[in-house]
Amino acid sequence: MTGRNQEEVKGITLLGNQGTAYPDDYAPQVLETFVNKHPNHDYFVKFNCPEFTSLCPITGQPDFAAITISYVPGERMVESKSLKLYLFSFRNHGDFHEDCMNIIMNDLIRLMDPKYIEVWGKFTPRGGISIDPYCNYGKPGTRWEEVAWNRLANHDLYPEKIDNR
Amino acid sequence: MTGRNQEEVKGITLLGNQGTAYPDDYAPQVLETFVNKHPNHDYFVKFNCPEFTSLCPITGQPDFAAITISYVPGERMVESKSLKLYLFSFRNHGDFHEDCMNIIMNDLIRLMDPKYIEVWGKFTPRGGISIDPYCNYGKPGTRWEEVAWNRLANHDLYPEKIDNR
Amino acid sequence: MTGRNQEEVKGITLLGNQGTAYPDDYAPQVLETFVNKHPNHDYFVKFNCPEFTSLCPITGQPDFAAITISYVPGERMVESKSLKLYLFSFRNHGDFHEDCMNIIMNDLIRLMDPKYIEVWGKFTPRGGISIDPYCNYGKPGTRWEEVAWNRLANHDLYPEKIDNR
Amino acid sequence: MTGRNQEEVKGITLLGNQGTAYPDDYAPQVLETFVNKHPNHDYFVKFNCPEFTSLCPITGQPDFAAITISYVPGERMVESKSLKLYLFSFRNHGDFHEDCMNIIMNDLIRLMDPKYIEVWGKFTPRGGISIDPYCNYGKPGTRWEEVAWNRLANHDLYPEKIDNR
Amino acid sequence: MTGRNQEEVKGITLLGNQGTAYPDDYAPQVLETFVNKHPNHDYFVKFNCPEFTSLCPITGQPDFAAITISYVPGERMVESKSLKLYLFSFRNHGDFHEDCMNIIMNDLIRLMDPKYIEVWGKFTPRGGISIDPYCNYGKPGTRWEEVAWNRLANHDLYPEKIDNR
Amino acid sequence: MTGRNQEEVKGITLLGNQGTAYPDDYAPQVLETFVNKHPNHDYFVKFNCPEFTSLCPITGQPDFAAITISYVPGERMVESKSLKLYLFSFRNHGDFHEDCMNIIMNDLIRLMDPKYIEVWGKFTPRGGISIDPYCNYGKPGTRWEEVAWNRLANHDLYPEKIDNR
Amino acid sequence: MTGRNQEEVKGITLLGNQGTAYPDDYAPQVLETFVNKHPNHDYFVKFNCPEFTSLCPITGQPDFAAITISYVPGERMVESKSLKLYLFSFRNHGDFHEDCMNIIMNDLIRLMDPKYIEVWGKFTPRGGISIDPYCNYGKPGTRWEEVAWNRLANHDLYPEKIDNR
Amino acid sequence: MTGRNQEEVKGITLLGNQGTAYPDDYAPQVLETFVNKHPNHDYFVKFNCPEFTSLCPITGQPDFAAITISYVPGERMVESKSLKLYLFSFRNHGDFHEDCMNIIMNDLIRLMDPKYIEVWGKFTPRGGISIDPYCNYGKPGTRWEEVAWNRLANHDLYPEKIDNR
Amino acid sequence: MTGRNQEEVKGITLLGNQGTAYPDDYAPQVLETFVNKHPNHDYFVKFNCPEFTSLCPITGQPDFAAITISYVPGERMVESKSLKLYLFSFRNHGDFHEDCMNIIMNDLIRLMDPKYIEVWGKFTPRGGISIDPYCNYGKPGTRWEEVAWNRLANHDLYPEKIDNR
Amino acid sequence: MTGRNQEEVKGITLLGNQGTAYPDDYAPQVLETFVNKHPNHDYFVKFNCPEFTSLCPITGQPDFAAITISYVPGERMVESKSLKLYLFSFRNHGDFHEDCMNIIMNDLIRLMDPKYIEVWGKFTPRGGISIDPYCNYGKPGTRWEEVAWNRLANHDLYPEKIDNR
Ligand SMILES: [Ca+2]
Ligand SMILES: [Ca+2]
Ligand SMILES: [Ca+2]
Ligand SMILES: [Ca+2]
Ligand SMILES: [Ca+2]
Ligand SMILES: [Ca+2]
Ligand SMILES: [Ca+2]
Ligand SMILES: [Ca+2]
Ligand SMILES: [Ca+2]
Ligand SMILES: [Ca+2]
Ligand SMILES: [Ca+2]
Ligand SMILES: [Ca+2]
Ligand SMILES: [Ca+2]
Ligand SMILES: [Ca+2]
Ligand SMILES: [Ca+2]
Ligand SMILES: [Ca+2]
Repeated sequence: MTGRNQEEVKGITLLGNQGTAYPDDYAPQVLETFVNKHPNHDYFVKFNCPEFTSLCPITGQPDFAAITISYVPGERMVESKSLKLYLFSFRNHGDFHEDCMNIIMNDLIRLMDPKYIEVWGKFTPRGGISIDPYCNYGKPGTRWEEVAWNRLANHDLYPEKIDNR
Repeated sequence: MTGRNQEEVKGITLLGNQGTAYPDDYAPQVLETFVNKHPNHDYFVKFNCPEFTSLCPITGQPDFAAITISYVPGERMVESKSLKLYLFSFRNHGDFHEDCMNIIMNDLIRLMDPKYIEVWGKFTPRGGISIDPYCNYGKPGTRWEEVAWNRLANHDLYPEKIDNR
Repeated sequence: MTGRNQEEVKGITLLGNQGTAYPDDYAPQVLETFVNKHPNHDYFVKFNCPEFTSLCPITGQPDFAAITISYVPGERMVESKSLKLYLFSFRNHGDFHEDCMNIIMNDLIRLMDPKYIEVWGKFTPRGGISIDPYCNYGKPGTRWEEVAWNRLANHDLYPEKIDNR
Repeated sequence: MTGRNQEEVKGITLLGNQGTAYPDDYAPQVLETFVNKHPNHDYFVKFNCPEFTSLCPITGQPDFAAITISYVPGERMVESKSLKLYLFSFRNHGDFHEDCMNIIMNDLIRLMDPKYIEVWGKFTPRGGISIDPYCNYGKPGTRWEEVAWNRLANHDLYPEKIDNR
Repeated sequence: MTGRNQEEVKGITLLGNQGTAYPDDYAPQVLETFVNKHPNHDYFVKFNCPEFTSLCPITGQPDFAAITISYVPGERMVESKSLKLYLFSFRNHGDFHEDCMNIIMNDLIRLMDPKYIEVWGKFTPRGGISIDPYCNYGKPGTRWEEVAWNRLANHDLYPEKIDNR
Repeated sequence: MTGRNQEEVKGITLLGNQGTAYPDDYAPQVLETFVNKHPNHDYFVKFNCPEFTSLCPITGQPDFAAITISYVPGERMVESKSLKLYLFSFRNHGDFHEDCMNIIMNDLIRLMDPKYIEVWGKFTPRGGISIDPYCNYGKPGTRWEEVAWNRLANHDLYPEKIDNR
Repeated sequence: MTGRNQEEVKGITLLGNQGTAYPDDYAPQVLETFVNKHPNHDYFVKFNCPEFTSLCPITGQPDFAAITISYVPGERMVESKSLKLYLFSFRNHGDFHEDCMNIIMNDLIRLMDPKYIEVWGKFTPRGGISIDPYCNYGKPGTRWEEVAWNRLANHDLYPEKIDNR
Repeated sequence: MTGRNQEEVKGITLLGNQGTAYPDDYAPQVLETFVNKHPNHDYFVKFNCPEFTSLCPITGQPDFAAITISYVPGERMVESKSLKLYLFSFRNHGDFHEDCMNIIMNDLIRLMDPKYIEVWGKFTPRGGISIDPYCNYGKPGTRWEEVAWNRLANHDLYPEKIDNR
Repeated sequence: MTGRNQEEVKGITLLGNQGTAYPDDYAPQVLETFVNKHPNHDYFVKFNCPEFTSLCPITGQPDFAAITISYVPGERMVESKSLKLYLFSFRNHGDFHEDCMNIIMNDLIRLMDPKYIEVWGKFTPRGGISIDPYCNYGKPGTRWEEVAWNRLANHDLYPEKIDNR
Repeated sequence: MTGRNQEEVKGITLLGNQGTAYPDDYAPQVLETFVNKHPNHDYFVKFNCPEFTSLCPITGQPDFAAITISYVPGERMVESKSLKLYLFSFRNHGDFHEDCMNIIMNDLIRLMDPKYIEVWGKFTPRGGISIDPYCNYGKPGTRWEEVAWNRLANHDLYPEKIDNR
């Protein structure tokens, strides 16, 4: 027995699909959504994406990061295989770490119109220093707007230990 | 000497019982409760359930998660062996990660009428991405309703490190 | 040189005492106290007790837990060797996990009349599930009463990782 | 550009294939192989399989294990998606831990005729005890036969720390 | 479908059995065995037993240890639920750490006549020092006799880090 | 394709540049900035700098620290390679740990005029004691001023475990 | 070049000094201070002191602790080598764990007149139980007085895992 | 002062060089060497390369691995920046995990003619299983040939713990 | 019931004894032994002693170490409480790290005449460097003499990670 | 009481000495030794040196490493404070990682004429790759010569996990 019927998975074309084509460059158009079956009760969904890679826009050198995306769904939710393809589209794309995180967040806001979302990237070091950008967003006019500010103001009071090894 | 008398364990039929029958599919009816002996003093009980498995509703592939269930009991409490059987009933059942967590929470609310409850699932990755849904609930009209909102708004400010290994 | 004189350790009969007799069953009477020398300045004392064991009241099977007891002393403080003997008295006593934690807290409240106390038990799994009860208390009429509520409402927002190994 | 041509991936029908059917019970027939391109130079390949689950043949209760499979290929190598389906076929199959590990090893020996193979299962506890079987094999008449004995005789001199949490 | 038939589980009376009676003191008679289905191929089975407790024979104070038992089966194998009951029988029994480990090994040798066995106990500290005894055995006249000596001679070259916390 | 055009990286002279000259002593003048492309949306950027070293102003002995710098950009952002050179300029400079952290924070405030910044240094021990200074700043007249106070007041409630090994 | 001139290190007699004499018993008089160069900007300084040892006032048995001292300096700051000597003076001094922490805090308050200070000791176990006292202080009449209360009220919501090994 | 003169770094064109061009596909020609100044004394050099990525030759999906390369130099040694560019050239190249490791080892043997070399790749999971190939080589006619066999025969007796998270 | 009778604990005067007197300086005379009940079967006993402290013979500064003592008993075994007192006698004694470890080993050899013994001390750093001496011994004329050499020759091939924090 | 008399610490001029002068560049002349009091019994001494830093001879960029030095003393032993000063002398010296390790080993051989020595450096990454050289030496004509070969041939079969964070 399965808990989702055909109607409820409408719009999902990539999950379980064989010949997936991988995009060559930044491709927000691959993102897909499905309907949120619990729209009246706010809850969190987190994606752990430790296999992100992009290019340095100045030197062309590859960059690597573990990205965490956490959001409170509105009426639609992002499908995870399409998210994988979207993140994969940065593979041969050049951008600063800080820009990548803001772009990902903004694309997901446009896609899903979530109540809340935050994106945190943790990159590997270059020259002994690593960079971890964090951005977030609460839907204007909802109580999640204030939550976004509070979460930003209390962000990362306990930085994790990094020793470059 | 034992602290619970016969009256106080009434309703427990599975714990200590031989020949337990394991259900074939989603079976909320196996859940059992016992009486809360400390009803006037709110306290938390947490279940750690790292052996959860279900099926993907699209591909049929098995999914695995560690689930944490935390609640503040009202007058009845869920018996842990029946909880084990209930979670086991998802073994051959297909549902999205996000739906599973909401279903488990709602079944336990119906069963126990708790003052507060939260359910957090942490799944293993597929295609390099893992998904961790979190939902919670505070009994309407009690101060736990506001607690639920505060806990949701402050949820997971420090995502754990995931590297898919 | 020693910082405590004879007067200040009055009431301590077990610490440093040879032929300690170990009780056979639940024995709150073994608990002893000594005077708090800093009564005008609230502070915390935590006991880490990873060697707790009791029996399942239904099956007789032994249970194991790590218990943490944290309190803010009033005029008297519990002596740690007597606490050890008290916890040891659960060794052949049968009670549910949730009951044990509430009983320990209530016995210590009666003994010391502390300003604040909390007890957290973390048990080993049976059938793949482990149970962690947490209870706390603030002395009525003091500001610790509100603290108790706040600590309960914010309890365990970051459940530790459990994998049963 | 790709390093394997069509000829070299002949026999792989499951990897990249959409409508994979998941078997209901123990199914060694789903295993597939591909050709080893480096047959003249012995090397190791290890599979980490932390998502194994089977049933207790006596109680029907689900068991969980992390399995490690390490082998030195001969002329054919097992394809990993077919290995996934094979391991998945134990999901509703009942067998003792020790039997499961021996069965998996023997099936892979029959399939690939490897020079060397070892299988190590690490199960979650039941009643406070967990069981970790380990079996291995070296192809008779090769120097890997002696290696198998030496690896068995020196097996697990440093058991990992287990605390059931 | 199940891999073990009735004949092959003959002699197992405790696993899956409801009203198990827990022994009051050291009880080697509760140990049970079942037949080894792979007797012609030596392999290891390890039991992780982190919930062992006994008493100090001098002071009566409870002792706690994590015990690891590793063996190579001969014709019979110890059943794990009976092993649990056997280890539980030390709960109210007084013996030195070093004696407990030797007794457990000798009882299992008598029970199973294994080809090889080793027992390693890791106790919690008393007075700032903890004790970890390790004993092993190889069946005389087999090649496991020499393995036992080699494993003993190379025992624990990398002691784990202990800080009593 | 690259997300930053020439205009947007104006002012960056060190990143991707060959013959970088390393300064001999404290050199705030090497710091460079680039434009913040998301100025209307506050977000955090963290630098992990585990390779900091300076000298003791009294004894000349080298000191080592892991420094974390977290800030909310205003209109300009510090370029990471120039930050590396700046931190490197402390290599042969003598100053107390507490002074170094305050100097770094003040130089970055002058450089970038950030909305918020905090600097946390964690030094290695001398004589068995290690020192970890933490300072922060919120831009006066913005809501980040109050954030700075709140973050300071809630600083480091959970000191990490240090054992000098 | 060095950031502190002679005037700014006035009062430091021990750092860099040969032939330091180690005191025989509790010696608050060895503590030295230096001037805070950033008095208008509140910041934290933390000392990690994992090598603390004293004696039990009842049994004479040595006790060991890791102590963390965190403070917000006023006009003077404690010099770390003198702090080392001061803590060393407890080596042959007998006092209860709870008393030691309060004494250290009070001595440092008298010495430096800090805006805020907290002292947390984490001792090794005796008889299976370890004790962790925590005390703090905010200068009366400053906003740090309220901070002290808030930090106490929110103290240690996530007790670290202790297993006595 | 510097320990290597111009003559001794002859052949290094990439290290310290600005406009490095990153290759589009598998490019062994970018590898560079420098002279070994200690040729008469065998020693090991290990490269830790946790940022390796390639493509699946069947599905085009990106794969990620941490690669360890350990070797004993002969007369020439591989320069690390050229090694970085070489490994980067697999970024858009499709090959099986097992093939990638063998190719890397063979390219480095051709380049440096080392006395010994081993390559170990640890990939992230797909469908719940991860693959870790290991290959090695000892120069024929030297004592390193036997070392290679011994290291292979004793490879990975203690597989690391993997839980896909 | 207790496994050791009065005869078998003859010679133990300190364990369970109240008014233990703690020695002022190096005191090998406090060591006590008891009879080994398993003399015909060689086995290991390890003591973990993480609370060792002595003084620097040059500066008088206290030193701290975690000591591991592993031995194979002959006819007598060292009693652990007397070992505690013996190690405590170094508290106000000055000696180099390397000398302390050799002295402890030699005292225990004289006391117990063991078949094999090794002592490993791991000290905390001074000036950024820590020292870990290791010595061992096999009884001349027994096979443990060769074991001692082999263990020394293979000592510590995998040094633990130390970062002074 | 102190275990080393004046005669036995002859040659130590730096330990406990105030105005230590720190050398500007590579300075093997600062190394000092003292007599080995246990010359007839071979034992190991390990130095953990996690605070090593040098310069890249090509780019001038600072490099950081944790170095482990393990040796078996002959008649003289290196004094640790002089070793600290010696390692500090690399601070402004440029050399390849591989050269630094060989130079350190050779200097210590010349200084102490040890029976055995090994030096292992573990550097932080540049461009995503880190380098760990390892060299060792056994005194010719002693049995330590063969030990050196065996330790080299079995070096680092279990590379530690590195993720550049
Ligand atoms: Ca780098
Ligand atoms: Ca790290
Ligand atoms: Ca996958
Ligand atoms: Ca991980
Ligand atoms: Ca269980
Ligand atoms: Ca665990
Ligand atoms: Ca269990
Ligand atoms: Ca564990
Ligand atoms: Ca103790
Ligand atoms: Ca520990
Ligand atoms: Ca540490
Ligand atoms: Ca621990
Ligand atoms: Ca993991
Ligand atoms: Ca030091
Ligand atoms: Ca450390
Ligand atoms: Ca790491």
